[in-house]
Amino acid sequence: MEMWFSEFHTPDVKHSIRVNRHLYSRQSEYQRIDIFETPEFGRVLTLDGNVMLTERDEFIYDEMITHVPMSVHKEAKDILVIGAGDGGVVRELTRYDRVRHIDLVEMDPMVVEACRAYLPGNACRLDDRRVHLHYENALRFIRRCEAKYDLIIVDSSDPFGPSEGLFTREFYGNCYNALKDDGIMVNQQGSPFYAEDAHAMQRSHKRIASTFQISRVYQAHIPTFAAGYWLFGFASKKYHPVDDLDAEAWNALNLRTRYYTTRLHKGAFYLPAFLEDMLKEVED
Amino acid sequence: MEMWFSEFHTPDVKHSIRVNRHLYSRQSEYQRIDIFETPEFGRVLTLDGNVMLTERDEFIYDEMITHVPMSVHKEAKDILVIGAGDGGVVRELTRYDRVRHIDLVEMDPMVVEACRAYLPGNACRLDDRRVHLHYENALRFIRRCEAKYDLIIVDSSDPFGPSEGLFTREFYGNCYNALKDDGIMVNQQGSPFYAEDAHAMQRSHKRIASTFQISRVYQAHIPTFAAGYWLFGFASKKYHPVDDLDAEAWNALNLRTRYYTTRLHKGAFYLPAFLEDMLKEVED
Repeated sequence: MEMWFSEFHTPDVKHSIRVNRHLYSRQSEYQRIDIFETPEFGRVLTLDGNVMLTERDEFIYDEMITHVPMSVHKEAKDILVIGAGDGGVVRELTRYDRVRHIDLVEMDPMVVEACRAYLPGNACRLDDRRVHLHYENALRFIRRCEAKYDLIIVDSSDPFGPSEGLFTREFYGNCYNALKDDGIMVNQQGSPFYAEDAHAMQRSHKRIASTFQISRVYQAHIPTFAAGYWLFGFASKKYHPVDDLDAEAWNALNLRTRYYTTRLHKGAFYLPAFLEDMLKEVED
Repeated sequence: MEMWFSEFHTPDVKHSIRVNRHLYSRQSEYQRIDIFETPEFGRVLTLDGNVMLTERDEFIYDEMITHVPMSVHKEAKDILVIGAGDGGVVRELTRYDRVRHIDLVEMDPMVVEACRAYLPGNACRLDDRRVHLHYENALRFIRRCEAKYDLIIVDSSDPFGPSEGLFTREFYGNCYNALKDDGIMVNQQGSPFYAEDAHAMQRSHKRIASTFQISRVYQAHIPTFAAGYWLFGFASKKYHPVDDLDAEAWNALNLRTRYYTTRLHKGAFYLPAFLEDMLKEVED
């Protein structure tokens, strides 16, 4: 028997992964949740048919969205994580002894339940005593917060569908207000390669750049995402993502990582010419 | 009607591209050559069913394999290009006024013929007066050369099939001898993500590292190659790929590029932790 999961990265490009078993499939109030067992990528979580993570390459995403801001903001202790019900970001954050409080706001309890059952490598630190889980709409949650967080990590799904509100100017403004005076917001910022993705990335970069004093984009190779090429947004009130990196301090923490290094951190902000042009186009 | 071209990146991962028309298909003495017209990537050249280039993303590969060594070796004038019958590397090289002589050694005349007919964006500079085309086995060609070239660019297909000989210790040794005292060899070095690719990359890196004084690996996002994540090898008798980069001199040339920048050049050598480990493993 042959079983394949396919995702259309555009109507004309398809990425297919051989499947051994379809482990989980449920329709929640918000989305369809599936987990597959695959020979190449281990377990794969999809929401509405889009790959959210695979056991084989989630470390790239989770390390890059977490350690880049954490190595720049050396005092980050109070942290808000939006989305990310799989627990991968929380797992990376709880490795820092200095972290005091993590609010994790995930709209869909069924995602957390599925990941606890089938993706323990991601969900393993959701019960850390510093983690506070809120099953709530992040747009509503964030309106109540003022100057409360050192770092906000927006680990949303794509801007088409249930996460749409996490790419609006209003939401970014509320994140700004929820951050302390030296706060940082990091978000998954899509992919610059295919036209529709690139357009969405430009739109949200424009909104973030007009909200925050400092706004930069950084990149990583994530094989199971569109074009294998993924971006993150780094928005900040004070810290510059490269100039304020304290490599020595971060390396002294002795956190073992498989993708992130403080050298790669810098390189991740050195973007191709076509992407620099796309960003400049919307920054003025 | 639906028509798709699919490439297996591993037996368990498949990348598929919608096809409008199958423009060209011939079996040469060495390989099967196909050219497809596609809505997402423009024209696509495949050899034995593997994507060699697409009109949409070839600029990434061709700029990175050419401008990285050309910006480090500011005097590179005499250049050997191996493979690359499509003409993309030659197109980038002929943009430098200082280049005096390019030997292009391509084993398969039918590749050149097909690209001249269907991929003029790549083949457009094959008739530059400085370009000397040799339809010959590169392994034999290189044995006759001594201290002749400033730069050798090995733009081979994968190490499984007709290009196998371009990944041997003997070949790298002959390249070394064919280079002047400050010469550089750059090669396409595969992908580090899937196990079989990673293993081949390690094997050839080991051979290059034991042949040249300086041997480094650099990376680029190439969406139509395996995992979207591609590597190049930079091997050199004298120049260091980052320390000897003269960004100011290169930028003064005013070559417009779409991927390469002198800042990205540096970042391309800042590798993920897992890849640094893979390279170290075979360097000792």
